[in-house]
Amino acid sequence: MSSPKYLTGDKAAINEFIDKFDTFLFDCDGVLWSGDHVFDGVIDTIQMLHEKGKRTVFVTNNSTKSRQDYLKKLTALNIPATVEDVFGSAYSSAIYISRVLKQASQPKPKVFVIGEAGIETELASENVDFLGGTDPALRRDITPEDFKALADGTGLDPDVGLVLCGLDFHINYLKLSTAFAYLRTGATFMATNTDSTLPMNHSFFPGAGSVSSIPLANMVGGGKMPVACGKPSQAMMDAVEGKFQLDRARTCMVGDRLETDIKFGIDGRLGGTLAVLTGVMKKHDFEKEDAVTRPAFYVDKVSDLGVATD
Amino acid sequence: MSSPKYLTGDKAAINEFIDKFDTFLFDCDGVLWSGDHVFDGVIDTIQMLHEKGKRTVFVTNNSTKSRQDYLKKLTALNIPATVEDVFGSAYSSAIYISRVLKQASQPKPKVFVIGEAGIETELASENVDFLGGTDPALRRDITPEDFKALADGTGLDPDVGLVLCGLDFHINYLKLSTAFAYLRTGATFMATNTDSTLPMNHSFFPGAGSVSSIPLANMVGGGKMPVACGKPSQAMMDAVEGKFQLDRARTCMVGDRLETDIKFGIDGRLGGTLAVLTGVMKKHDFEKEDAVTRPAFYVDKVSDLGVATD
Repeated sequence: MSSPKYLTGDKAAINEFIDKFDTFLFDCDGVLWSGDHVFDGVIDTIQMLHEKGKRTVFVTNNSTKSRQDYLKKLTALNIPATVEDVFGSAYSSAIYISRVLKQASQPKPKVFVIGEAGIETELASENVDFLGGTDPALRRDITPEDFKALADGTGLDPDVGLVLCGLDFHINYLKLSTAFAYLRTGATFMATNTDSTLPMNHSFFPGAGSVSSIPLANMVGGGKMPVACGKPSQAMMDAVEGKFQLDRARTCMVGDRLETDIKFGIDGRLGGTLAVLTGVMKKHDFEKEDAVTRPAFYVDKVSDLGVATD
Repeated sequence: MSSPKYLTGDKAAINEFIDKFDTFLFDCDGVLWSGDHVFDGVIDTIQMLHEKGKRTVFVTNNSTKSRQDYLKKLTALNIPATVEDVFGSAYSSAIYISRVLKQASQPKPKVFVIGEAGIETELASENVDFLGGTDPALRRDITPEDFKALADGTGLDPDVGLVLCGLDFHINYLKLSTAFAYLRTGATFMATNTDSTLPMNHSFFPGAGSVSSIPLANMVGGGKMPVACGKPSQAMMDAVEGKFQLDRARTCMVGDRLETDIKFGIDGRLGGTLAVLTGVMKKHDFEKEDAVTRPAFYVDKVSDLGVATD
């Protein structure tokens, strides 16, 4: 792996970098904003890219929000976007599942969901039947009757053939037990994404992987992991390419996570990857000898690209 | 590793086996009972061992119950025992923590608990200050205020120096977030046990490791795992030895989990290990070539030892 090129402050290099690409895929949290705070200069930078005829796509692993929810967030922060520019792991999962279930003429067509409303909205948009999710009937303590019904199968829907795990702020023992019971009956194991942590309020909280898929994988044992539809999974890249008819060589992934965003771009053989240091990643992470992967370029912050307009 | 000796039906071999030992350490669930159903012949077998002057100790990774709670269960099932015969992972953890905290003159003397009342009872019995656990204030959804208070530290008790994870039927996002925040401030990471599953109602449910320590280890990253006080951790064996003044060479561990019970006995250099096939373990698990470990002896069920009295 060659050394990443540092672009901050180098106007000529930035112009050359921008000229290489038609499409920029942006991770959002830690790149464009942190929580509800949009980073200075981000809006101008996105506008500058649009003025130069570039397409910007917002590619997020956050599965709690649907594309419409995400657009609301972008709009509230004055970031120019349409719903078509948003690509989330819930949407990616819904497309993948709908295709998988259709192709297999799946005899068990329902999905048991661990997650929030964003997943439900996207599954519904692809006409996939689901249960679990935000159902208030599952937001409670487990009872002796539940133990019995999950053990003997009477508490399970025989039409469930797939478990989809995402970030669930209402995770509990009953949901984990139910998902585990479906997996033991042979349900396909999928995850919107397996991020270990969730950046919030300039700190870190449990991520999707830590609350649902990692615990379930540990129960199932044998090293079995879910098919993940978020970055860095190429299921997501294929879906993005299919929707936007990308020329991968003229596409650049911009992100703040080495093992998620940068790996996503490199595994997807994109023309470029750009790391920003406003989120999780530190320069040390990709400069150290045993770095998992390395971006092609890096800047301190997204708005450092803005000097191209000077 | 040599082949385990099969004792079922071999009266002479059983008598020889029993004569080798003064103390039998019994795992409980899957060995003596399943759920609330005591296996046939178990009571007679325990009595037979007592009549032969053997000591029986009940060594359980179940941290949701205190020793007193466990004694109630044993008594309800007519298994002869006193509270002194019970050794659980909650008790083992309390002893370990109390010693660790005392030795280090720990400036942060409080323990944040993920778990049920059993852990609290045992910590209290060792005069260890704790918070979390069954506190109703944590049995609720996370709020924006919680995110803020955990991120800026105002929601954390500055005296917490240790996080103890066990099985929690009321696990939720708020508890995991709080434990994660303490771990990030440098708290020591401990677990009563890290069992992946919990046998219940002749089926399997999420175990202690899957609901608390594995998710937290995944968030913390870098392969960091908690110090575990349950089987197969030798912290538990040391505590058992200290309490009962065991002669390890004349002690046998009886259990139904290869990686928990049998490993516990072998790592502890006990004189013997006996596997039973009434729980998780199948004969194939220790007969296959890449078996993690192998018991010295096995029987179909504990009561097969009972023919020694014939």
